[in-house]
Amino acid sequence: MRIAIFGGDGFIGWPTTLHLSNLGHSVTVVDNLSRRWIDTELGVQSLTPMDSIQERQRIWKSESGQDIGFQLINIATEYERLKTWLGEWQPDAIIHLAQQRAAPYSMKSDRHKVYTVDNNTSATHNLLAAVVELNLDAHILHMGTMGVYGYSTVGAAIPEGYLSVDVTLNDNSKAEQEILYPVNPGSIYHMTKCLDQLLFQFYAKNDGLRITDLHQGIVWGTHTDQTHRHEQLINRFDYDGDYGTVLNRFLIQAAVGFPLTVHGTGGQTRAFIHIQDSVRCIEIALDNPPESGDRPKIFNQMTETHRVRDLAELVAELIGGEVAYLPNPRKEAEENDLVVRNDQFLELGLQPITLREGLLNELIDVARRYQHRIDRSRIPCTSAWTKELAKDVVGRVESGIDFRRFRSG
Amino acid sequence: MRIAIFGGDGFIGWPTTLHLSNLGHSVTVVDNLSRRWIDTELGVQSLTPMDSIQERQRIWKSESGQDIGFQLINIATEYERLKTWLGEWQPDAIIHLAQQRAAPYSMKSDRHKVYTVDNNTSATHNLLAAVVELNLDAHILHMGTMGVYGYSTVGAAIPEGYLSVDVTLNDNSKAEQEILYPVNPGSIYHMTKCLDQLLFQFYAKNDGLRITDLHQGIVWGTHTDQTHRHEQLINRFDYDGDYGTVLNRFLIQAAVGFPLTVHGTGGQTRAFIHIQDSVRCIEIALDNPPESGDRPKIFNQMTETHRVRDLAELVAELIGGEVAYLPNPRKEAEENDLVVRNDQFLELGLQPITLREGLLNELIDVARRYQHRIDRSRIPCTSAWTKELAKDVVGRVESGIDFRRFRSG
Repeated sequence: MRIAIFGGDGFIGWPTTLHLSNLGHSVTVVDNLSRRWIDTELGVQSLTPMDSIQERQRIWKSESGQDIGFQLINIATEYERLKTWLGEWQPDAIIHLAQQRAAPYSMKSDRHKVYTVDNNTSATHNLLAAVVELNLDAHILHMGTMGVYGYSTVGAAIPEGYLSVDVTLNDNSKAEQEILYPVNPGSIYHMTKCLDQLLFQFYAKNDGLRITDLHQGIVWGTHTDQTHRHEQLINRFDYDGDYGTVLNRFLIQAAVGFPLTVHGTGGQTRAFIHIQDSVRCIEIALDNPPESGDRPKIFNQMTETHRVRDLAELVAELIGGEVAYLPNPRKEAEENDLVVRNDQFLELGLQPITLREGLLNELIDVARRYQHRIDRSRIPCTSAWTKELAKDVVGRVESGIDFRRFRSG
Repeated sequence: MRIAIFGGDGFIGWPTTLHLSNLGHSVTVVDNLSRRWIDTELGVQSLTPMDSIQERQRIWKSESGQDIGFQLINIATEYERLKTWLGEWQPDAIIHLAQQRAAPYSMKSDRHKVYTVDNNTSATHNLLAAVVELNLDAHILHMGTMGVYGYSTVGAAIPEGYLSVDVTLNDNSKAEQEILYPVNPGSIYHMTKCLDQLLFQFYAKNDGLRITDLHQGIVWGTHTDQTHRHEQLINRFDYDGDYGTVLNRFLIQAAVGFPLTVHGTGGQTRAFIHIQDSVRCIEIALDNPPESGDRPKIFNQMTETHRVRDLAELVAELIGGEVAYLPNPRKEAEENDLVVRNDQFLELGLQPITLREGLLNELIDVARRYQHRIDRSRIPCTSAWTKELAKDVVGRVESGIDFRRFRSG
């Protein structure tokens, strides 16, 4: 299959690119390299040393014999270049990961909010408009998020995208309808993924586009079978307060003797998936496209749920370390339950990698190996959801830990 | 009250500006004059001769003694200028009409789709982000559309924004939830108004913004009490296939002896409101803002529903003329019922102007007075929802009428 990977230089994109190339697909990365620019903006870097995309292409070629294409296109702002390239390359599938993907970054300032909405919405819409204009019969797979559902506890399992509800009719009888799950995003970033859903709904209905939306949980891990193959194929590993995700951050914190930072009570329950499963899910979804005329196909791309404080305590117990309870810069429920349906991927053969599989130690090894690259002052989460919450973010003493001393490293 | 009217140079914006200025409010129009540029792009013009916004300011001052401010800002692309001006002027209310508002224009080509999504989404989001950043306690009133609900017939009245549904819980009991009405937009334009709803939901929840969303029906008429007061205060009146709306178009067609063009069976039922009621509704909504912390307040801003073919036949009977049934360039249900709740405005004192009130003749007078300005070739609707539908749009003979002869005037 000819597969275009939009955002193929990123944390999910790069291992996806290798995984699909390894399966024999003809793969081209389309990326504006914005994630590297954001590293520069924030003055942080991946824990793991990343080579340029061009160098990665060269190494993969020498390792596997396979070519990976690369197109430097900003799909959010360069509509005509995007359309021209799609028309020339005629992919069978387009994997769309080309969006700003960090909730804290999206809430950093008004500039970051504006950037995230403009970038993410235009990126998705430009892709859809171009595919229609070119009359391209490509399967579009989009990386969504479990966060579109929100984390309010209603006592019902979260279905895969569509919720069955009863509506009261004029004659007082009830009629069952299946609707897009009512969204309740927790950040500007999450909200953009809700906007995407409406774009997909429209283009599937009006133009018969074949669209799959993958509502992914929090990804942990860094290696896949392919990123292991050469040191220069290594994946990025974010540990900073904006881009680092919770479990990976706990492991790094434990590895380098930094307190495990839990925000609020840690009663937030979230969905998780290992990055190896993430790329495998993308492969499975690629093999099972919807038909033209179908509504967008939605998968919940996650394998297990955990409460944040339980994770922190598990890591502290396994690796050692102290758990620090800090003020929460996010506006969110202190505690929530979460029951998620993920039947579709399980039925299609996914064998989940869970936390018990021992891959935690692999991450600890990565963290220890590259710990000299860690700037401890960048570990705390400092992006707050409102100006009111921002007042509490820095310098509070919690659980006997003076948070300030961790800022200067 | 200090009121900023974003899009105050447009079809709803201008009479709203005059209406609120007439009530004694301090009013400033913020507009990029894009609607005038689109006239230029399409090579069409308002049936009524419109003066520049600056000339309109001058005439209104001499008529009423009131000043109307004007700021030339593109709120979708000039975030910093928008924020600076809002910070300086500190409005108590912001009426947001600054979006591309024609469904056919939004479907004309991929360029028009991209423009409509980028422009409308960024406009709304920039406004919200700036109000939060400035900590401005302004009531935001947005012009939405009845089209967010879609026109599928489910046998239930359309509520004002929020739908009560029963959800089945894990223990098989049912729980009632009130959700944002599941959207089903019929065009890119309508879709952008659905995206807006999610932006409003987020900013009301996260930042306590006070937001009112007015889901308006199809507006008919052109005059309000204030636009009547001087020939140079006249409102724009669109008759072309992209920006003209159905009832106004029938009246113009009847006035100039053009067939009354019904697309499809004319079985589409739509909601309507007279422009005088539209500005009155905005006044009522201004006087009844939500509280900070409330979800967005949603009104259905319409007064009656009609089936399109019934309207055509009513106009043909009253004024004379032939009804022409033409292929439908839109992808939509041929027939639908529509029952809409609009209790809130009625309870707050709206006295609806209905078609029976005799204002149809006023419009016929306007059409006859300016009929020398009509380019008959611009009357047909030529923007199609898909390339397949586009094939049928022009040159079909229906009901004994050769549509082509109306194209050359």
